[in-house]
Amino acid sequence: MQQNKKSLNESYSKTAYPLIGHGARTAEVLLEAFDDVDGGQSADMYGRGAIIEDFQSRMAEALGKEAAVFFPSGTMAQQIALRIWCDEAGLKKVAYHPLCHLEIHEEDGLKELHHIEPILLADKDRLITLEDVQRLDERISCLLLELPQREIGGQLPDYGELEAISAFCRANGIKLHLDGARLFEITPYYGKSAAEICALFDSVYVSFYKGIGGIAGAILAGNAEFTAKSKIWKRRHGGDLVSLYPYIVSSDYYYKLRIGRMKQYYEEAKELAMLFNQCEGIQTRPEIPVSNMFHVHFRMSMERLEPLLVDVLDETGVGLVSYLRETDDHSCFTEVHIGDRYSQVPKEDLMMAFRLLDEKIKRAALV
Amino acid sequence: MQQNKKSLNESYSKTAYPLIGHGARTAEVLLEAFDDVDGGQSADMYGRGAIIEDFQSRMAEALGKEAAVFFPSGTMAQQIALRIWCDEAGLKKVAYHPLCHLEIHEEDGLKELHHIEPILLADKDRLITLEDVQRLDERISCLLLELPQREIGGQLPDYGELEAISAFCRANGIKLHLDGARLFEITPYYGKSAAEICALFDSVYVSFYKGIGGIAGAILAGNAEFTAKSKIWKRRHGGDLVSLYPYIVSSDYYYKLRIGRMKQYYEEAKELAMLFNQCEGIQTRPEIPVSNMFHVHFRMSMERLEPLLVDVLDETGVGLVSYLRETDDHSCFTEVHIGDRYSQVPKEDLMMAFRLLDEKIKRAALV
Repeated sequence: MQQNKKSLNESYSKTAYPLIGHGARTAEVLLEAFDDVDGGQSADMYGRGAIIEDFQSRMAEALGKEAAVFFPSGTMAQQIALRIWCDEAGLKKVAYHPLCHLEIHEEDGLKELHHIEPILLADKDRLITLEDVQRLDERISCLLLELPQREIGGQLPDYGELEAISAFCRANGIKLHLDGARLFEITPYYGKSAAEICALFDSVYVSFYKGIGGIAGAILAGNAEFTAKSKIWKRRHGGDLVSLYPYIVSSDYYYKLRIGRMKQYYEEAKELAMLFNQCEGIQTRPEIPVSNMFHVHFRMSMERLEPLLVDVLDETGVGLVSYLRETDDHSCFTEVHIGDRYSQVPKEDLMMAFRLLDEKIKRAALV
Repeated sequence: MQQNKKSLNESYSKTAYPLIGHGARTAEVLLEAFDDVDGGQSADMYGRGAIIEDFQSRMAEALGKEAAVFFPSGTMAQQIALRIWCDEAGLKKVAYHPLCHLEIHEEDGLKELHHIEPILLADKDRLITLEDVQRLDERISCLLLELPQREIGGQLPDYGELEAISAFCRANGIKLHLDGARLFEITPYYGKSAAEICALFDSVYVSFYKGIGGIAGAILAGNAEFTAKSKIWKRRHGGDLVSLYPYIVSSDYYYKLRIGRMKQYYEEAKELAMLFNQCEGIQTRPEIPVSNMFHVHFRMSMERLEPLLVDVLDETGVGLVSYLRETDDHSCFTEVHIGDRYSQVPKEDLMMAFRLLDEKIKRAALV
């Protein structure tokens, strides 16, 4: 299985037209971002200097918040956000989704470093609803919502539900924090600006290496008291680096380059999901994407599917899928997120790849 | 005073020959490091990939340790080192110098995030001795030694004293951690390799933006069990960035460029300290430097000295001092660290600057 896995990844990396994301994660990402940078530009020093302060100001404005702080990672930014709200309320209890990044990808930093207890709302298969929040029988300091909910394919609540959750939290003294790792990517679906969405939240984190495609880095935004506290915690975490400009310059560059393309990525995601859904035994989640991402579920085991996919990729040069992951029910899935690459794939090659995939799956079903 | 301070800094930044360090902290530092980097070079991904693993291996070898982990900051690396040793001993107590970086520059991250209690050894004016360690009347998990002790001018214990402290710690089940932010810079004075010095310690942190002059970044080294644990804590802290290569590439580049120059910087520091010490009312600490750094103490108030220095800098174009800091006894001091710049200053200009400084101080003393 390890061997198969490697071979799909190998095939993908050799395709003429990989579908996923913006491009390979190489040093070129940095070189392009720094191509026009003046060598005399002063570095930031421990959070000070025009290069960091200007970007923070522009991001505060884009997110409609009083202030913003650049962080090396979202992991650091979000733990700190929850810690600040817990300290303010004098209660180390928060609520979030069972598949929240803090719960499954951070080695329990929130618990180990901050001793904050999370209550898991909803369940692994669905979004948090207003009812889930209303039914909480314990007091919490902060509710974290991730928009879109990445681990279930990038789903979103109706905007009205979101407004109702926000109103409920405000009425009940619960701070609302936005895990907006993919915030910019959902603005076309909601038909709202980032600032309009953020207005429903007390604090917000956004990432610069998802849809934006930078190297790394995050912004945490909120009121000035909140961001001032976050800088103290940033130093405690070891995130107040002498200079963060490699990440700031690239975040800024790719933000400017791609912020206007979010609608295009969203439309393309819907198109691609439709092509997947037309194939035998394939279903996307959500069926109609609400951002630039979705999951593709295959009703076939990974062992059987992987060689078929390798054939399709090798024969057509179109990288439909870069990896597979097994699910509990012995089927498998992959994640797709649209960036600059999709529009570069010739439509006829794309169609051929889907036809071939559909044929191969149908043939395999007969065996 | 704020005005004077600004003006010395301004004068310094306009001098033809600033003395301190390697050069201005500008984007050029990154551009130079990436000049020969192939755009196709793959990025590191969450601690994996040749670009991070190769550098870690080479640093483990240079430090004579089993393994090494690249961290975005020393603040993060050192808190984690102490946490691992405390957890292993089941005792959240360590000892370090009162002017240790963790005590004065990290917003108490060690206490706030790790709940580790530090015992302050020695006092603010001198180094930790073997006797200080022997006299400890409480059990500790780990002793941190900073070599050289930056905040007192970069002083070092005799090597024999260091060996004796190491032997005592080993005999008494105390882990010994090296704050080696300036480790490479002390190898010429001790006449030992970095690995020989590190052999006295269980874990070691080194920095890449002090004598090495990179952008940011640190290495934490020790045995494989220790470094494996440090990776988990690195993720918890939010330091396991998707890609750290901007710091790794620049650390590697400047390490190769400057590791062979440490003896030169050390010899130049001794020369420059001698020139300061020949001036009226000026004394360096240590009198004879043991690394590339020292402090310069002036027996004059900052208000009186600053205009004199501004005149010297403006008249000679030699940047002897970039800032001043007041001390408790109403005199003042500055820190000097030697890098690539010192050797570029014409000797006659340097001598003229010191003559002028000496004259001005003597004249001021008569007023």
